[in-house]
Amino acid sequence: MVGTYRPASAVGKSLILQGHCDVVPTGPLEMWETPPFSPVVRDGRMYGRGACDMKSGTIGALYALDAIKAAGLRPTARIHFQSVIEEESTGVGALSTLQRGYRADACFIPEPTSGKMVRSQVGVIWFRLKVRGHPVHVFEAGSGSNAITAAFHLIQSLEKLEAQWNKRAKSDRHFKAVRHPINFNPGIIRGGDWASSVPAWCDVDCRIAILPGWSVADCQAEILSHVAAAARDHRFLSNNPPDMEWSGFLSEGYELKDSAEAEAAFGKAYDVVYGGSVHDLVFTALTDTRFYGLNYNIPSLCFGASGAAMHGFNEYVDLDSLRKSTKATALFIAEWCGVEKL
Amino acid sequence: MVGTYRPASAVGKSLILQGHCDVVPTGPLEMWETPPFSPVVRDGRMYGRGACDMKSGTIGALYALDAIKAAGLRPTARIHFQSVIEEESTGVGALSTLQRGYRADACFIPEPTSGKMVRSQVGVIWFRLKVRGHPVHVFEAGSGSNAITAAFHLIQSLEKLEAQWNKRAKSDRHFKAVRHPINFNPGIIRGGDWASSVPAWCDVDCRIAILPGWSVADCQAEILSHVAAAARDHRFLSNNPPDMEWSGFLSEGYELKDSAEAEAAFGKAYDVVYGGSVHDLVFTALTDTRFYGLNYNIPSLCFGASGAAMHGFNEYVDLDSLRKSTKATALFIAEWCGVEKL
Repeated sequence: MVGTYRPASAVGKSLILQGHCDVVPTGPLEMWETPPFSPVVRDGRMYGRGACDMKSGTIGALYALDAIKAAGLRPTARIHFQSVIEEESTGVGALSTLQRGYRADACFIPEPTSGKMVRSQVGVIWFRLKVRGHPVHVFEAGSGSNAITAAFHLIQSLEKLEAQWNKRAKSDRHFKAVRHPINFNPGIIRGGDWASSVPAWCDVDCRIAILPGWSVADCQAEILSHVAAAARDHRFLSNNPPDMEWSGFLSEGYELKDSAEAEAAFGKAYDVVYGGSVHDLVFTALTDTRFYGLNYNIPSLCFGASGAAMHGFNEYVDLDSLRKSTKATALFIAEWCGVEKL
Repeated sequence: MVGTYRPASAVGKSLILQGHCDVVPTGPLEMWETPPFSPVVRDGRMYGRGACDMKSGTIGALYALDAIKAAGLRPTARIHFQSVIEEESTGVGALSTLQRGYRADACFIPEPTSGKMVRSQVGVIWFRLKVRGHPVHVFEAGSGSNAITAAFHLIQSLEKLEAQWNKRAKSDRHFKAVRHPINFNPGIIRGGDWASSVPAWCDVDCRIAILPGWSVADCQAEILSHVAAAARDHRFLSNNPPDMEWSGFLSEGYELKDSAEAEAAFGKAYDVVYGGSVHDLVFTALTDTRFYGLNYNIPSLCFGASGAAMHGFNEYVDLDSLRKSTKATALFIAEWCGVEKL
């Protein structure tokens, strides 16, 4: 969904304000203290799925535009306000706005960054291991091959790949300071049909990070050969290697650059609200900024509120931090786009 | 479903002929060479889910009754022909016939035993591990706890319990000769909702065997304390131990005894069809015989055809072996119940 503000006189620099409206699944509802889709405000925090990541940021950007209006001003450059889908699995929502032709001199994404500017962020590869077993009646289990325990064999091997990649990350100028930038996660598992049958199948959905500058294709090839080697080291999988599917994210990492003008404008806004200079965030998750910066050469800033438990239970955004990041957003828009009296 | 034959003159010994009509799930259909529920006869074998375990045995027993009639004879004792549900998870089908009052001087269950008599069989305990995790965004995976890998920790621990129990089985007079009588099987696993969230939950359905004479309650207590000890040995589970559910079988093992008369009658029938004496089977699965023998003092024989891939793909029964076991069944009925001319 894109809403475009077109100024009477376009004298400033144009801007894309983008947020994503998709969230991750809630998980078991009984593990939430409040209903995930009924926001609750308590002790200065708003709780709910997406409160932090990132419905609050998107709405904050809308309030920033309102604030400019409430101050009796209006921007003097084109602004695309974009609420996109599918940031949490693929990023295709942001990509589709670019493919449909929406462009600007800069992009600003108010993800919850705890009041820091994302300087460098990982890419992500999702893949599904489809592991087979040899099903037999469990009374003769030893003559079969259990797809669930075979899947564990591969998961344990991928934990070694994670360790290798974290070692490799020591040579990255931003991520060398991060303790464990590459996170491998087996996030979903489904296998077997019957407690008394040796399971014939087990599917595992996995996520692993890569760093800026690492090629997605090279990393895919490395995952494939790593899994193949682990399969060769297993009695049954050696002759029945798993199938692999690329089941979502195939995303490069991104390092913010060629963005001096936009950063300078944001720096002024930041100083007014927070005082001093904005701190960098080296981010072990990803954001949609990569498409703008890497693929379309649009400097893309990512900055927003504080909160916690993103993707977890009792996710919340800190409302005071949201007010501050919204003020900074409004001042940045005014600085970047210019304003004139209503 | 029980059908009762009542003789005009009841001079022989009464008999229960029992088979179960439930089967286990097929698993992925593409792993079958023929459709599991469209029987295919090829090279003397009938393929299909349940062809071996145990629709063929149940129908064989019905044909045995037909064979007696075709020979111009009729039994001279009451016969309950019972087709029961739910042998594969619980055994409640057989139990319900007993609870409804069906009794006889002996029971005969034509499970596929490869032409051997089940002498001793395991009991089975099913349980579900409900493992929790601490979900966080995977960018900070180390601060959470992955329920899937925590479940593996418990599975690996239960493999040690399986090894302990197999060592204990060395003192069983029948099972000491069996290489690996206690089989532990994690048969179903389900966990997590999202590849990029550290999973908050993982459920594992497990089956483990116990031996005749081992108390179900004692073994349950041992499983619980074993899992609790493994949980204490885990960073997250130590404070968040898994929930356990008893999710199906809670079955004692059974050793055939107090059955000399029935065995003698069957021995005669066996000798006519196969020649010589019937061989014993020490069975690492269970059958419904346990309810009759253990709980209702009805000697309960288990004998039937050959086949393979029970609970697996391309399950089949060998049709020649089915003809032989059906003949032996008919002769046993005649011997046990007595016959008179039609």
